[in-house]
Amino acid sequence: MNQAAGPRHLQDDLAAIRERLLDMAAMAEERVALAVDALARRDSLRARNVVLGDREIDALELELDEACINLLARQQPVARDLRFITMAMRISSDLERIGDHAANIAKAVERLGATSPIAHLSELDEMARIARGMLSDALDGFIRGDATLARDVCRRDDQVDDLLDNVFRILLTHMMQDPRRIEPAMSLILVSRNIERIADLATNIAEDVVFVVEGRSIKHGAEQMRDV
Amino acid sequence: MNQAAGPRHLQDDLAAIRERLLDMAAMAEERVALAVDALARRDSLRARNVVLGDREIDALELELDEACINLLARQQPVARDLRFITMAMRISSDLERIGDHAANIAKAVERLGATSPIAHLSELDEMARIARGMLSDALDGFIRGDATLARDVCRRDDQVDDLLDNVFRILLTHMMQDPRRIEPAMSLILVSRNIERIADLATNIAEDVVFVVEGRSIKHGAEQMRDV
Repeated sequence: MNQAAGPRHLQDDLAAIRERLLDMAAMAEERVALAVDALARRDSLRARNVVLGDREIDALELELDEACINLLARQQPVARDLRFITMAMRISSDLERIGDHAANIAKAVERLGATSPIAHLSELDEMARIARGMLSDALDGFIRGDATLARDVCRRDDQVDDLLDNVFRILLTHMMQDPRRIEPAMSLILVSRNIERIADLATNIAEDVVFVVEGRSIKHGAEQMRDV
Repeated sequence: MNQAAGPRHLQDDLAAIRERLLDMAAMAEERVALAVDALARRDSLRARNVVLGDREIDALELELDEACINLLARQQPVARDLRFITMAMRISSDLERIGDHAANIAKAVERLGATSPIAHLSELDEMARIARGMLSDALDGFIRGDATLARDVCRRDDQVDDLLDNVFRILLTHMMQDPRRIEPAMSLILVSRNIERIADLATNIAEDVVFVVEGRSIKHGAEQMRDV
């Protein structure tokens, strides 16, 4: 503890944490892609694989937390390095939750089965497309330290919220028209909410990227209120 | 930065962070209580107040994050103090999310209005009672550094999940029986999912309490796999 450590040692440790976070991010992105793909194809087998593959990302989160806390204990990172480490811990927890939401989508796809009395909703595809783009750009922003890209991610969250309302209204109409559509409509509503949560978490990650790069928080509209 | 600082200074800073976290926790608990109360009474006015009161808890989260990062930069906390600070940041983010879920419950209560074609569900009360108890005990465990209490919180999460399934089945039956019950049933399903998320977040907090106290993670069933 508190041993003297050169800056190179610190930079190596930071690089290792960045590497591990990118592995986790790739895994979370892949799980979202697989879940959305299983939904589009109504493929229960693919969905099952997403549900089963949750442990790997969980294990990575634990490893990353440990690496961050060890680094904080051994070195004395300041300023941007310190912000990077604390945000890495938060981002890893957000990525783990994104993995959970992908599993929830996959579970809903399993319940839906191969046939459905509800025609495919293009709005749901569009939501998934935007949410995946947000996640991918949030992580790109993180890798490149690009606060402009990260801010752009935050702006796209409203589009997803609007689509969520549309999907809800469409599915409610289906349920009203035919009781046999209630169960599949419920599953699709759950899918839409999980996609929306993925977009929210991508927004959280993007906010954390801005904080790492600029040292000020843009959470909760803080940007309008003050400059930290 | 990196100025010499006596242990007393560190202890004062830690006490200030603990204090602020407790304020935030009290606020989150109160918001959940108000939302659940508005639900039981079908009181839209009370619900409106919960929806409007979200900014305060958001502001506290930002303050707390800043205080934690400043403390990490100025002092060199190790071992339990270091774990405490990193977990305080995570707990504050969980409390902020709990506030969001309380607001979601309140929004659903607003949509439900004063009258409803669905009789009051005792299962929903029970879910809310258990979730609130979990949150309150997780925070008590945090204050007292009581890992036993925290572990007990984690165990109760399964009861909430079982009730969630029950509520879902009951409301699905209502929807099938009468299309006029579809909209209110949807609102109640959203309420139940938000209560379940509050219980999940209370579990996350309890897991973090065990980590602060014992220095090992019990997340994702890690306890069965290894001792860190």
